[in-house]
Amino acid sequence: MKLSPSIEALIEGLRRLPGVGPKSAQRMTLHLLERDRPGAVKLSEALEMAVAVVKNCVRCRNFTELDICEICIDPKRDSSTICVVETPADVMAIESSGGFSGHYYVLMGHLSPIDGIGPEQLGLEELCDRFRSDGIREIILATNPTVEGEATAFYIRQRAHAARLVVSRIAHGVPLGGELEYTDSTTLAHAMSGRTVVNE
Amino acid sequence: MKLSPSIEALIEGLRRLPGVGPKSAQRMTLHLLERDRPGAVKLSEALEMAVAVVKNCVRCRNFTELDICEICIDPKRDSSTICVVETPADVMAIESSGGFSGHYYVLMGHLSPIDGIGPEQLGLEELCDRFRSDGIREIILATNPTVEGEATAFYIRQRAHAARLVVSRIAHGVPLGGELEYTDSTTLAHAMSGRTVVNE
Repeated sequence: MKLSPSIEALIEGLRRLPGVGPKSAQRMTLHLLERDRPGAVKLSEALEMAVAVVKNCVRCRNFTELDICEICIDPKRDSSTICVVETPADVMAIESSGGFSGHYYVLMGHLSPIDGIGPEQLGLEELCDRFRSDGIREIILATNPTVEGEATAFYIRQRAHAARLVVSRIAHGVPLGGELEYTDSTTLAHAMSGRTVVNE
Repeated sequence: MKLSPSIEALIEGLRRLPGVGPKSAQRMTLHLLERDRPGAVKLSEALEMAVAVVKNCVRCRNFTELDICEICIDPKRDSSTICVVETPADVMAIESSGGFSGHYYVLMGHLSPIDGIGPEQLGLEELCDRFRSDGIREIILATNPTVEGEATAFYIRQRAHAARLVVSRIAHGVPLGGELEYTDSTTLAHAMSGRTVVNE
């Protein structure tokens, strides 16, 4: 059956969203047209607006509408500590944990030579340039515990050591509420080798 | 953490889609901003376009961009049979089954007095007006096998009988590829009472 072109285009557009297959895209399309046309208009405007105004912070590369983002500009945050993460989603996750009040640096990816992503694409030079100025004391490496994430962390570690900064890596181990029995063996091995002494 | 307003608005907009929770909406938003800004623009345009041009066919009430939809206008389709369904999704499902080449009538809902949905809202008068004209021979009732769907089918059946039309209801029973053991008891009871004689 031939659908009308505008319905077809909307289904296609929704299919580009992650996790949305043809059936869900059709369901979303019909839902919007049947029951939520104001919602469709709002979504259309929000998409247009976000694409137009959201850019990267010139200091930390996180998404923002300003030149310098709200975290970088906040005088209450500790500017001597920079937490390096891969994506804006990581910043959101750490922020909602409430366990950090320093600054961030968002790489927007990780080192991946086969995809043509080197230090330049990740803004690593700009980051390392700041190591000697700015009164920075500690670099926290919070890239993902994957091969690429570790390689990226290693690169930054070398440079930060050279600048005589404290470098730390976030802890990896058994998640809270997790059970040893159901924890994968790589994580368990990590938790073992990264154990901390508690008697004193 | 306070997100920038335009990112917040986009997450809110995506959350209105069926099956999208806060986490998925955030993931979709960051995916679009990080990796698929052209996709976001396309989706925005597709939404705006669909809301602007998609309306209901004046004959069958299905979604279309034209006054009379492509199915109603197609001379190759059998205009003596009308299949009554609840939603445009039902039309798509039947069309993709390839088992029907007549016309449709899309109620856009079912009788539901507590929600204020009566025969008027479903365009049942317009449907019944056509029973006496138009050379219609058979009405196929394909509303859902729910209480409301059955009530709606019953209403149309009475009116069609009065107009001396053949009225049929699509078969309900064990789905093909389904196993008796895993079929719910209501469906099985239906399949039993609706059995057909096969010896001749």
